Amino acid sequence: LNFSVKILGSCSAVPAFGRHHSAQLVKYYGSTFLIDCGEGTQLQFQLHKSKLSKLTRIFISHLHGDHFLGLFGLLSTLSLMGRTKQLQVYGPKGLREIITTQLKYSQSIIKYPLDIIELEFPKSGILFEENNLRVSHCPLDHRIDCHGFTFEEVKQSHRLKPTCENLNLSKSQIANLKKGNDILNENGEILHKNEDLTNPPRKCKKYSYCSDTKYDERIVPFIKDSDLLYHEATFLNDLASRADSTYHSTAQQAGKMASLTNTSKLLLGHFSSRYKELRPFIQEAQTEFENCELAIEGLEFFIEK
Amino acid sequence: LNFSVKILGSCSAVPAFGRHHSAQLVKYYGSTFLIDCGEGTQLQFQLHKSKLSKLTRIFISHLHGDHFLGLFGLLSTLSLMGRTKQLQVYGPKGLREIITTQLKYSQSIIKYPLDIIELEFPKSGILFEENNLRVSHCPLDHRIDCHGFTFEEVKQSHRLKPTCENLNLSKSQIANLKKGNDILNENGEILHKNEDLTNPPRKCKKYSYCSDTKYDERIVPFIKDSDLLYHEATFLNDLASRADSTYHSTAQQAGKMASLTNTSKLLLGHFSSRYKELRPFIQEAQTEFENCELAIEGLEFFIEK
Repeated sequence: LNFSVKILGSCSAVPAFGRHHSAQLVKYYGSTFLIDCGEGTQLQFQLHKSKLSKLTRIFISHLHGDHFLGLFGLLSTLSLMGRTKQLQVYGPKGLREIITTQLKYSQSIIKYPLDIIELEFPKSGILFEENNLRVSHCPLDHRIDCHGFTFEEVKQSHRLKPTCENLNLSKSQIANLKKGNDILNENGEILHKNEDLTNPPRKCKKYSYCSDTKYDERIVPFIKDSDLLYHEATFLNDLASRADSTYHSTAQQAGKMASLTNTSKLLLGHFSSRYKELRPFIQEAQTEFENCELAIEGLEFFIEK
Repeated sequence: LNFSVKILGSCSAVPAFGRHHSAQLVKYYGSTFLIDCGEGTQLQFQLHKSKLSKLTRIFISHLHGDHFLGLFGLLSTLSLMGRTKQLQVYGPKGLREIITTQLKYSQSIIKYPLDIIELEFPKSGILFEENNLRVSHCPLDHRIDCHGFTFEEVKQSHRLKPTCENLNLSKSQIANLKKGNDILNENGEILHKNEDLTNPPRKCKKYSYCSDTKYDERIVPFIKDSDLLYHEATFLNDLASRADSTYHSTAQQAGKMASLTNTSKLLLGHFSSRYKELRPFIQEAQTEFENCELAIEGLEFFIEK
């Protein structure tokens, strides 16, 4: 049980050097979310020993092929594998028409309840709150409607001190302590002050996903204070004008965004097929922000372990 | 330069054991044709060192996802790679709507002329003849409209005997010999009889592709006399009734079809994810037809070398 992000794909439009199209798994205490679903994502699940059957919800940032072309195959495979549980898929307008067109001509049926939720653009807001996790979306500045996503804990429990073990506390007393309450006796008098038996809650953790987008400071309020921020870095700075004209970012811009937003760690990805060697992405981003890593296929980044 | 079939994918709907969705490359003296284009086919091109840029035409048998979901990504990548040459894509009705729907929402443009030719069902006929190769289609018996394809040489040249080298023949004389004509002098008299200078043409070679289909003897006239026949074998005989109900074939049925059609070699493929071990497919098919092989990813089968 943890809060983590596992990378299944890291390249931009043209696949190269064994890198795959965008896909990430966000795991949060028993829930597994897929963000983007490039071509071959279901094969990447197999390769990286992740279970399709555990998928809870899917989020598609935008309808460029490298971010969603694996979706229909994955939905079909889930049906063939016997899934019966509802699956929510969030994505831009048009996603439903694309899927229903393919279902029509393949004369296929998805046997589980498939709930496609089309997101308004350019709007932001909470998509849902569930099991102490809030997932939200915000508009990104790309060539077509594109959404960023954040996954953030809603609240954290007070943490019991070891001394509690000797007090023979009931379940309801423990629950009260975790909520920050004191323990009272039958007359409503304080038996134990909360601060004596607990440490304050740890910070609520947050993951932010920004792909694809120009460098755009309008998203700062949305992604600020992330423990982990994924920001696309399609190009290096020598192609900054190309990044601008194609509505993408450079590694330096991703670093700048991380430094502006009080981020703990930055993940770089969506690398152009021009670049075989990826170390320069780290070097360039580190001119702005020290703690960054490459979003390489198979790596899992733990936000809480 | 040769006539060959290279396997890029061999599995049925649910990918398993490292096998990929259906895709094959047919190479004929400088032309490269793709039959079916399952999810991840563009990655299989890279893995098996085949060049996307060499693609001449594409044939999609039917619109189940495992046979076409890689198409849109592949078409997009060709555009991003700078292709300018026209590309013909043959497939069932609906293929155009699926592609145009995806283009609409991705706001993408295919920069080369893309010619989508939707095939009538259930009809058969010649799709084109080019560089001595005739490509035809015929209806298969599957759950949805599905087409088989044949690639056959139109005619073969008479083959020059070594003695020709000493005769100082002109180009037009050689061309005449290859056509089967005698060489005449200026008065129209026979100078050399064709049979003295040439061996008869070798047999015209033929490749037939049948996936997905029930066992169906109606296709015998269409695929007969193939040098290489690919016939799907989704199941083994213990699941013959499941093969029947899902409009697929067993390995034994594929063998029977090969033996009925004067085929030289049979290729089995489209294996269900139930089967990890594929040797039983060969053993079962060989109860009907001896010369058979598995269509394993990366293998290339030479019809003429």
